[in-house]
Amino acid sequence: MKIIGERINSTRKPIQEALEKRDRAFILKEAKAQLEAGAEVLDLNAGAFIKEEPVYLKWLVEIIQAKFSVPLALDSPNIEALNAALEVVPAKTEVIINSITPEKERFDNGISLVKKYSTSVIGLCMDEEGIPRNKEKRLKVAETLIKKLKEEGIEEERIYLDPVIQPISTDTSVGKAILESIKVIKTRYPRVHIVLGLSNISFGLPNRRLINRTFLTMATAVGVDTVIADPLDKDLITSIRAAEMLLGKDEFCLKYLESQRS
Amino acid sequence: MKIIGERINSTRKPIQEALEKRDRAFILKEAKAQLEAGAEVLDLNAGAFIKEEPVYLKWLVEIIQAKFSVPLALDSPNIEALNAALEVVPAKTEVIINSITPEKERFDNGISLVKKYSTSVIGLCMDEEGIPRNKEKRLKVAETLIKKLKEEGIEEERIYLDPVIQPISTDTSVGKAILESIKVIKTRYPRVHIVLGLSNISFGLPNRRLINRTFLTMATAVGVDTVIADPLDKDLITSIRAAEMLLGKDEFCLKYLESQRS
Repeated sequence: MKIIGERINSTRKPIQEALEKRDRAFILKEAKAQLEAGAEVLDLNAGAFIKEEPVYLKWLVEIIQAKFSVPLALDSPNIEALNAALEVVPAKTEVIINSITPEKERFDNGISLVKKYSTSVIGLCMDEEGIPRNKEKRLKVAETLIKKLKEEGIEEERIYLDPVIQPISTDTSVGKAILESIKVIKTRYPRVHIVLGLSNISFGLPNRRLINRTFLTMATAVGVDTVIADPLDKDLITSIRAAEMLLGKDEFCLKYLESQRS
Repeated sequence: MKIIGERINSTRKPIQEALEKRDRAFILKEAKAQLEAGAEVLDLNAGAFIKEEPVYLKWLVEIIQAKFSVPLALDSPNIEALNAALEVVPAKTEVIINSITPEKERFDNGISLVKKYSTSVIGLCMDEEGIPRNKEKRLKVAETLIKKLKEEGIEEERIYLDPVIQPISTDTSVGKAILESIKVIKTRYPRVHIVLGLSNISFGLPNRRLINRTFLTMATAVGVDTVIADPLDKDLITSIRAAEMLLGKDEFCLKYLESQRS
């Protein structure tokens, strides 16, 4: 499971303040904590600042790359912000653009950067009509998106499909629809990654972390390989380690045993 | 998820002693605790007593049915013990015979009782060569068993297929092989139940309950609907409630919310 650490997000108050104050130490502490907890990619989001987003996103990339050699997920639909950030990313650094949709303008803008900088990309499974409600519509939107990306020359390995989770509290059919559509997509496009932005699923319910890790565990069984989440959630990490072991991805159970020691 | 409570098992020391002393109160306390915790079926096992097994199994059925109107899983390969117990089961009580295998003698003995008493039956996915190692062999054994049962006139709804879990610590490929074979079986025989005897999976590893509930959660996503487990494991029950909700089996999230209150 590739964990994309979600904590450096300007919708979180402490991050917003750190950005305003240019508090380098605070941001680097958040980065370090996530990497130590098991994140392999850091998501960077400065979207709470409309005007200053390009400046702040670029600054985040600069200070983090000066200290850590780590893949980045640039979390913005804003072409200017993405451009500003991508210009300062070191050539060897892996980047995932988070995200594009099949809608023409956002797709065209995003894809031009994906191609120019040879990045990977998270594609959101939604269209002009919003987030699809049932399995059939989900599949159709997902396939359209994957096909469009492949037509642009993006290999399956660089595509991260995000099924876009809605809260189970507002529609109890959404979990099953997502799991079923992932099963089909993984059969048709086995090399496409499936990424979950986890926390939405539990919105409005008690014990959200239990719901989040339960859904991730189920999703792991049907082919999800990447998650955007808070790696400081220890119960989430131990259940990821257990799930990986149970799927035969942990030789001699070593990573699981290590997670139990720490 | 149908939970078959596993606690009344003579391999557990307190149960063995209660049987020897005919400690009715202790057995009934175990039964009540499991039912209150969410068990829908009680597994009864007196197999630690070779000679007295028929007498003890019969006694268990009698004292429990006198107090609780609850479905029973009669846990024995011993035809005499099963016969003694089945003779005293009230006509209206649902029974699952736990278990038969495709091996001729055990199959023929078991099936004669399944037919005579119109019970359900747990079929173990193993044959003369033992427990199959890979997905292909698992599927073959499972299909042979289901076909044999259907030829005997047993409807799919009365068949509980048990994939027979081995410890992940001795073979890290076993979890994935089981999940993959369940997916295929559920596609071919959608009305056959899949039951997991959960605790073996974690044998020899620390934090066994975490591994157990993680595997059950994954298995739920691919079609497992019944589990033999300890319902007094609260974390297991809450993760079952979360998983059911996430699969759309909990209208208005009521059962989940209730599990969070208790």
